[in-house]
Amino acid sequence: MCQLLGMNCNVPTDIVFSFTGFAMRGGRTDHHHDGWGIAFFEGAGVRHFVDHQAAIASPIAELIKNYPIKSTNVIAHIRKATQGHVALENCHPFVRELWGQYWVFAHNGDLKEFNPLLNGAFRPVGTTDSERAFCYILQQLRARFGEQRPTRDDLHAALAPLVAEIATHGTFNMLLSSGGELYAHCSTRLFYLVRQHPFDTAILSDEDVTVDFAQVTTPDDRVAVIVTEPLTTNEQWIPFAPGELKLFIDGAPQQTA
Amino acid sequence: MCQLLGMNCNVPTDIVFSFTGFAMRGGRTDHHHDGWGIAFFEGAGVRHFVDHQAAIASPIAELIKNYPIKSTNVIAHIRKATQGHVALENCHPFVRELWGQYWVFAHNGDLKEFNPLLNGAFRPVGTTDSERAFCYILQQLRARFGEQRPTRDDLHAALAPLVAEIATHGTFNMLLSSGGELYAHCSTRLFYLVRQHPFDTAILSDEDVTVDFAQVTTPDDRVAVIVTEPLTTNEQWIPFAPGELKLFIDGAPQQTA
Repeated sequence: MCQLLGMNCNVPTDIVFSFTGFAMRGGRTDHHHDGWGIAFFEGAGVRHFVDHQAAIASPIAELIKNYPIKSTNVIAHIRKATQGHVALENCHPFVRELWGQYWVFAHNGDLKEFNPLLNGAFRPVGTTDSERAFCYILQQLRARFGEQRPTRDDLHAALAPLVAEIATHGTFNMLLSSGGELYAHCSTRLFYLVRQHPFDTAILSDEDVTVDFAQVTTPDDRVAVIVTEPLTTNEQWIPFAPGELKLFIDGAPQQTA
Repeated sequence: MCQLLGMNCNVPTDIVFSFTGFAMRGGRTDHHHDGWGIAFFEGAGVRHFVDHQAAIASPIAELIKNYPIKSTNVIAHIRKATQGHVALENCHPFVRELWGQYWVFAHNGDLKEFNPLLNGAFRPVGTTDSERAFCYILQQLRARFGEQRPTRDDLHAALAPLVAEIATHGTFNMLLSSGGELYAHCSTRLFYLVRQHPFDTAILSDEDVTVDFAQVTTPDDRVAVIVTEPLTTNEQWIPFAPGELKLFIDGAPQQTA
């Protein structure tokens, strides 16, 4: 199984603190050593880093830990290979373009006998069930809405049955973003928290690191963090309900139709 | 105007030497300070780094110079903005998926009144003429060949009139690769050389660096390097003819139909 980390904020925020703890699970505090990846939205652009080395051994992960790239939407993943061999093309997150926007996707879980009909609009490059699911989602969204991106509510309404259908094949915890929002679907295990004013101190579970967010934020900042396993020991992480698809905008979960 | 750097090899080779000289032009020995980018194929996967900071000021460029990522196909670009503002989404190279393969593209030049009809299969995320040209190329190739990647000769035969058509709008020096090969089109200025046994010493033009390739290669290695401006002072760089589209495979230019 793999682990997911997502961040959605109302102002560009660096993920150095959360990534530092998360990356330790890529081979040190946990056994997710079959590659890792992270994608940062920056305006309409995406910085995309993938590596088939364990996150703890990767010079690129080291760079991310030390170079505070600021973003309002980040998706990261550390991999324990279940389907698809250890190779760069099988590292999450995956990136594709739809409606003139980049879409970023990462998955935790394992899908059995999931071989949807792909018409070629989006085709997997690697051999994972995850990339297959991502291509299927984008294909179905384009088939449904054509060349015009739908409203947020229409997109959510289309996405919910689609991810539920995929989840009938196995475990399908996933994060999906096109930069302005972050969708998180829980099939078995996913947590989130929202950090906002008044900010407090947070203590990482996987590394001897503490940060006092009050020192590095303004009162208007709001940051939602979504993870497979809680990253800190002294904060209240809220579990998703199985089958729940949550939409995060500006650092907060939204009420959806 | 921008500058291009491509590398095509028969064995995975690091680009540290060439990139070191090339990156100096991103703000120091030349005025290309509006971003840069580089993409490395590794198997079917791609490592893609873009930054809207000048290459000489970028921590990611620093990483590339020090971390020998080995690849058989590399495309790099430093940008002097002509069309499209300075932003991450306007940094080359661009990446899209077609026929289950990643395609990487970078362009040097400026296209005037280039507004091809894009049907939505590939849509630009940024605002450059270059990304528009890339989307148009992939759209036309898919329209022509459907869901099956054609043979090398058929692809070359389809690509030649397509790039010539785009070049009627202005300057269109470009590099294009799907990992197994590298296409280079010269509209005004492009050079290449092939390094092979017996290897010799090369001296960078832009930085006080010399490398003796005989020390770091085997007799079977072969590397083609394609650039806007020659990178070394003591090697014979071969100019492309205007209008020439060259295909490089395994470090050598191919005879094409």
